[in-house]
Amino acid sequence: MSIKIAIDAMGGDYAPEELVKGAIDAAREYKVAIQLVGKVDKIKEELNKYNNVNKLDIEIIKANSIIEMDESPGSAIRRKKDASIVVTVDQVAKGNAQGLVAAGSTGAAMAASLFGLGRLPGIDRPAIAAVLPTTDKPAVLIDAGANSSCNPKMLYQFAIMGSIFSSAIMGIKNPRVGVLNIGGESGKGNLLTQNAYKLLSKQTDQYKFVGNIEGRELFAGDCDVVVCDGFVGNVTLKVAEGVARMVIKKLKDELSNSILTKLGAFIAKKAFMNLKKNSDYEEYGGALLLGIKGVCVIAHGGSHANAVKNAVRVAKEAIEKDMNGKISEMYELNKI
Amino acid sequence: MSIKIAIDAMGGDYAPEELVKGAIDAAREYKVAIQLVGKVDKIKEELNKYNNVNKLDIEIIKANSIIEMDESPGSAIRRKKDASIVVTVDQVAKGNAQGLVAAGSTGAAMAASLFGLGRLPGIDRPAIAAVLPTTDKPAVLIDAGANSSCNPKMLYQFAIMGSIFSSAIMGIKNPRVGVLNIGGESGKGNLLTQNAYKLLSKQTDQYKFVGNIEGRELFAGDCDVVVCDGFVGNVTLKVAEGVARMVIKKLKDELSNSILTKLGAFIAKKAFMNLKKNSDYEEYGGALLLGIKGVCVIAHGGSHANAVKNAVRVAKEAIEKDMNGKISEMYELNKI
Repeated sequence: MSIKIAIDAMGGDYAPEELVKGAIDAAREYKVAIQLVGKVDKIKEELNKYNNVNKLDIEIIKANSIIEMDESPGSAIRRKKDASIVVTVDQVAKGNAQGLVAAGSTGAAMAASLFGLGRLPGIDRPAIAAVLPTTDKPAVLIDAGANSSCNPKMLYQFAIMGSIFSSAIMGIKNPRVGVLNIGGESGKGNLLTQNAYKLLSKQTDQYKFVGNIEGRELFAGDCDVVVCDGFVGNVTLKVAEGVARMVIKKLKDELSNSILTKLGAFIAKKAFMNLKKNSDYEEYGGALLLGIKGVCVIAHGGSHANAVKNAVRVAKEAIEKDMNGKISEMYELNKI
Repeated sequence: MSIKIAIDAMGGDYAPEELVKGAIDAAREYKVAIQLVGKVDKIKEELNKYNNVNKLDIEIIKANSIIEMDESPGSAIRRKKDASIVVTVDQVAKGNAQGLVAAGSTGAAMAASLFGLGRLPGIDRPAIAAVLPTTDKPAVLIDAGANSSCNPKMLYQFAIMGSIFSSAIMGIKNPRVGVLNIGGESGKGNLLTQNAYKLLSKQTDQYKFVGNIEGRELFAGDCDVVVCDGFVGNVTLKVAEGVARMVIKKLKDELSNSILTKLGAFIAKKAFMNLKKNSDYEEYGGALLLGIKGVCVIAHGGSHANAVKNAVRVAKEAIEKDMNGKISEMYELNKI
């Protein structure tokens, strides 16, 4: 039986069009079964735009309401039992699907998953693992925004979850794990990073602790997994996005300044496109919410079909590699 | 009488060579008097490399020891009374110089300034104001690393100091001030940012509160001053540096991939150089430590002569514009 992924077809800036298109592409490319959750008419209308869709294993699951970006996630998921994200999570909770993809409100996806699926044993708080481009191999940043306040034990759990992600999904053996900090020495940073440093330096077999990591080293590829609280992690993601955009815009402006450099800009166009492809969140397909009983991929709100397709791939891999089983096993062995 | 700036000639990766060269350039270009603090022989040796230096108002002040990067700042400044940074600060404390420039250990420069000069009335903790490039005008980030834990009142004081910096040094009228956060709505973020939001929204005449600012908007130029705790601020600075380097390296690699793009790379070279010039910390000349009784510019450890020269310019402007007087005045009017 093939793996089945439930997709909240109503979540995200380009829902349902791009969600449906991405789902079709994923069903074709990865041979997965898909559940599209949302307003039946709208999803049907989108599906009808494509040929040979009836040969694919795509099912529509009715959900009549939507949780908007500005709603308070906790109360919204309790109030709107028929919201697309709630029904999507419910499909996984009931065992009708093995994983889910959500591109709508991140808060709502987290709340619905935590409420509907529960936490893995031993994990205090689920966390978002995001993939960052570096000059070397991509690195995993955890927590990328689920918990804006953390304690050192949570960062230790993030290290365990992140290193399983790094080895299972990204193929890194004994990933190098670091604490995102503002200096290299063990005493640097705030109370959280100082104490997390101590906890993480308890060696496990699964990862190699490389100490504190600063932003410069992180993007030079000096570690495979970096742990931090969700506030700092989310700031890091968004600063990275902002700086990358700024640098590219400034370069393009510089290149358009003269006829000679206009030629350069023309030639550089392919380079910019390749850079975009290599650094783009669309290619990584979204971030995994780790620590819950189930597989939940949180895609960017601005996901187009390609990002949705890749998010399905990430969910499929997490299921095939039994990430959650591995996390529980490793946590049991390294309990603190 | 011209403004006199004391420079720790022994601090930084390229001390004393680049410090002395930068000092000479600054004395020539900005008509300031300079005190070079450190080992007399070494400084003399450097000065002797240049012509017509005796026409400049440059004085050598003896200081026989150096605080190394790995020393604990607090104990080092107490123990080494003859350290170059301690003597440099002392020149300002005694009124022999009006401001100082330090490129060595940031911790030591902060500790020596706080200990030797004291805080401005009403300011709980001094903070570092760094200038960030954006796609629009440069923005001020405060605190860039002096205080790794902060309370909301400190962020309010940073807003006042940052807005004075923005108007006095960068010429922005009614600067737009935001809180660095992980979402736009007032309830977003951690306890610190939630409460800082409430405090900052008390309107003052000196700045326009624009609410929460995320990394993407910050680098798009959507505010003039962004406040945060020193941990988040320092992470932001270093992530920005890491990402800028990564993007530029990836683009250069892409551009060297074929003969056609090699031509593009050649043409793009000037663009890269202009970008570097426009985004470089060397051009901004370092960050001001605000909130102390005196002017202290903290230059990057890797400062070359140009950065040192610009750091002197920043110190001179802060003195001429009476930044500290303005901070005290504004704080008095907007006490909380």
